[in-house]
Amino acid sequence: MNYAIIFYTLGFVIDFSAAFMLPPFIVALIYKESDSKYFILCFVICALMGLILGRIKPKNKKFYAKEGYIMVALSWIIISLIGALPFYMSGYIPSYIDALFETISGFTTTGATILTDVEALSHGMLFWRSFTHWIGGMGVLVFILAILPLAGGENMYIMKAESPGPSVGKLVPKLRKTAFYLYAIYFLMTFIEFILLIICKMPVFDAICTAMGTAGTGGFGIKNNSIAGYTTQAQVVITIFMFLFGINFSFYFLIIMRKFKDALKMTEVQCYFGIFAVVSLIIALNTNNGNFVSSLHNATFTVSSIMTTTGFSTVDFNNWSELSRTLIVIIMFFGACAGSTGGGIKISRLILYVKSISKELSSLVHPRSVKVINYDGKTVEKNVLSSVNVFLITYCLIFILSLIIVSIDNFDLITTFTAVAATFNNIGPGLELVGPSGNFAMFSPLSKIVLIFDMLAGRLEIFPLILLFTPSVWKKQ
Amino acid sequence: MNYAIIFYTLGFVIDFSAAFMLPPFIVALIYKESDSKYFILCFVICALMGLILGRIKPKNKKFYAKEGYIMVALSWIIISLIGALPFYMSGYIPSYIDALFETISGFTTTGATILTDVEALSHGMLFWRSFTHWIGGMGVLVFILAILPLAGGENMYIMKAESPGPSVGKLVPKLRKTAFYLYAIYFLMTFIEFILLIICKMPVFDAICTAMGTAGTGGFGIKNNSIAGYTTQAQVVITIFMFLFGINFSFYFLIIMRKFKDALKMTEVQCYFGIFAVVSLIIALNTNNGNFVSSLHNATFTVSSIMTTTGFSTVDFNNWSELSRTLIVIIMFFGACAGSTGGGIKISRLILYVKSISKELSSLVHPRSVKVINYDGKTVEKNVLSSVNVFLITYCLIFILSLIIVSIDNFDLITTFTAVAATFNNIGPGLELVGPSGNFAMFSPLSKIVLIFDMLAGRLEIFPLILLFTPSVWKKQ
Repeated sequence: MNYAIIFYTLGFVIDFSAAFMLPPFIVALIYKESDSKYFILCFVICALMGLILGRIKPKNKKFYAKEGYIMVALSWIIISLIGALPFYMSGYIPSYIDALFETISGFTTTGATILTDVEALSHGMLFWRSFTHWIGGMGVLVFILAILPLAGGENMYIMKAESPGPSVGKLVPKLRKTAFYLYAIYFLMTFIEFILLIICKMPVFDAICTAMGTAGTGGFGIKNNSIAGYTTQAQVVITIFMFLFGINFSFYFLIIMRKFKDALKMTEVQCYFGIFAVVSLIIALNTNNGNFVSSLHNATFTVSSIMTTTGFSTVDFNNWSELSRTLIVIIMFFGACAGSTGGGIKISRLILYVKSISKELSSLVHPRSVKVINYDGKTVEKNVLSSVNVFLITYCLIFILSLIIVSIDNFDLITTFTAVAATFNNIGPGLELVGPSGNFAMFSPLSKIVLIFDMLAGRLEIFPLILLFTPSVWKKQ
Repeated sequence: MNYAIIFYTLGFVIDFSAAFMLPPFIVALIYKESDSKYFILCFVICALMGLILGRIKPKNKKFYAKEGYIMVALSWIIISLIGALPFYMSGYIPSYIDALFETISGFTTTGATILTDVEALSHGMLFWRSFTHWIGGMGVLVFILAILPLAGGENMYIMKAESPGPSVGKLVPKLRKTAFYLYAIYFLMTFIEFILLIICKMPVFDAICTAMGTAGTGGFGIKNNSIAGYTTQAQVVITIFMFLFGINFSFYFLIIMRKFKDALKMTEVQCYFGIFAVVSLIIALNTNNGNFVSSLHNATFTVSSIMTTTGFSTVDFNNWSELSRTLIVIIMFFGACAGSTGGGIKISRLILYVKSISKELSSLVHPRSVKVINYDGKTVEKNVLSSVNVFLITYCLIFILSLIIVSIDNFDLITTFTAVAATFNNIGPGLELVGPSGNFAMFSPLSKIVLIFDMLAGRLEIFPLILLFTPSVWKKQ
């Protein structure tokens, strides 16, 4: 392990995070709130820490896979530890564990809250909460790397560790240019949603926060009833944009390149749309009580919200009948497309899983034939396939261990199960006590730490975080 | 597909199944019950059907993987269709779907019942119910093959399809001799348990049925309160024998061969014991209300019962606190050892899963190194590993689909979830409405058909049953 390069890079990351404090600081100033001082204090702390770490000059500036994963995991933890300070210092969240839970829920775009009354927060704090979603959605490090490239061509590992999905495809050969395109799409789409929400009569502050929460597929609302109080038009806009931010960004890149045919042929996007349409329709029929249009509206909103792992709500789906509840729980695990801002297992992995089954069946029938798996016209490499399989195994293992520890709190099994599912898949609300009208305040500190781990593990797709706890990684070479 | 050879072999299987009707017939005679006529009627039906099918003489007596899997799946279905007749004709179970559910629950050694009052059944019927467990535990076809070998050396596929576990190890080079050893161990252990139960003051009829239910890791009780009414000594004997029947039979073979060291070094048996001990202890501590010995007794009984997928009960674990309930649900999935009579995912697969994770972590840290997985001193072949992974994927997929369909019945999510888990893993009782004091009677016919599929899929480890629904398999060559 090259410790020096890790400290050095962390210095950059922390320096950079200081800048994150400025937008909420400005918001607090605009609303003449005294909370502005906490943001400027955090800015100073970050800047100082970053400068000190930045003074460690590594002899060897190269870094490899191991260093990449560890750096990503540590950066996310450190940024969260700092990001929790405004909540804690201002006294809005008196327990530091709770403040950390809220911040990590923000950065990992989970949207699970420990707050019982969101509306009690100041504008600055509400903005900071939604802003963490927006930062976390696209990832911090890819952005930093895009403007501050390290020596060596090994930055790919950092992108691999931070970007969702089974394999990272660069849009263009240059990593920096890929990052540029990704962020441009992200900015532009957020801006368009903001404008449309304003048109749909949402107040400007609400529109900014909601657009950032949608873009990161986060789900923190600034009202206690989430999105239920806004106009139907605004809800439809949010439904559409949640869905759009759950699509693989390569799709938009192809659109920009005017390769419309290639874009529409993307298997993942087709399946994503198919699952969305079928599940929405079943739930709309299942929850229909006379007004089908309204049922369809709430069904598409909820399915879009859960499948993209955003977590906004217009209705309390905890009260739906069992078929709809079961479908909601199942799509919690499916998640959005790889290469989007959404969480979960990801549609592309599901496609590879289904293809693996048909390959296995065919090799049972013809034991001596060799078959490969194709995806979007390309043969899937064996190591990608094995990684995808091991992902499922590790996913199940972490899920089980989390379940056991959280069950010690002795809440009903559905609460425990969906609390783990909603945090691990970065969704936000679950069922029963953690349903759309509930929150995560009642869990013990131990459970909260487990759920914090799950949120981070979900966002970073497990392995960077596990490597952090693997002793052999930390050996000095 | 070689249709002729499938009909021909099915003829043998059905002929042989006729003989299964004789023991319950004798029991009914002994107790002077009028039900005896139904068993003799089934005997005649079987014998005739078998003779007719046996007249189809295949030109080509060779058969391959495909035919092997299909034959196993069809045999289990046909035997169950016939086995349900005594329950149905006698009027004890007026609905044929229910009778089929009960019989398949028997043959697959699940032990889930649709009967609300077991004690209303005659001795003949109770014996038949428990006898199906004993037949199903070891598998019908391996036995038939042992005495009626087909042409060609391809019988291995049949053993592969019917025996539980990721890869089938023959104890000795000759398949017939392997089968002989397996059945000898099975008979002997059942007999020893029977004797010990008699010593522990269990009535002879109860001891026979309970011993057969334990041996097959089935779980049908002949009392409404399952095992709760017998002496503590009898319960301890059952705890021990459930555990013993969940061990890989290779262990006993090594003991017989006096290779004690090799037997004790078996990774699967060590892990099996470890999980049993740790989970029992946690549950004993968690459910302790003053009398630790009694808590430990009930905890070991329940863990042994659920982990080996037997399903007997001494207490209603549905009333335990959430940590214990959660652990019970988790070990439902783990299951027993491969090569035992138990169901579930199997400990050997779990070991391979954990080893896959550590291999993946090491290849993340050292992307260029090649690592293999060793199991009991041997390198695990890549195709075995990929099969084990695809098993998990297919397992999850079937689980999800079952969950969706069964949830239409609108029972609470825990009932639905554990009903699928308890049938798919061949356990029997779940939680809430399908808990130890409940039953499966209230489900709709559609749900019952899904659960029947799950029981068969669980017992035959999924693939033979899926192949049955794969159109390409049925093409004539």
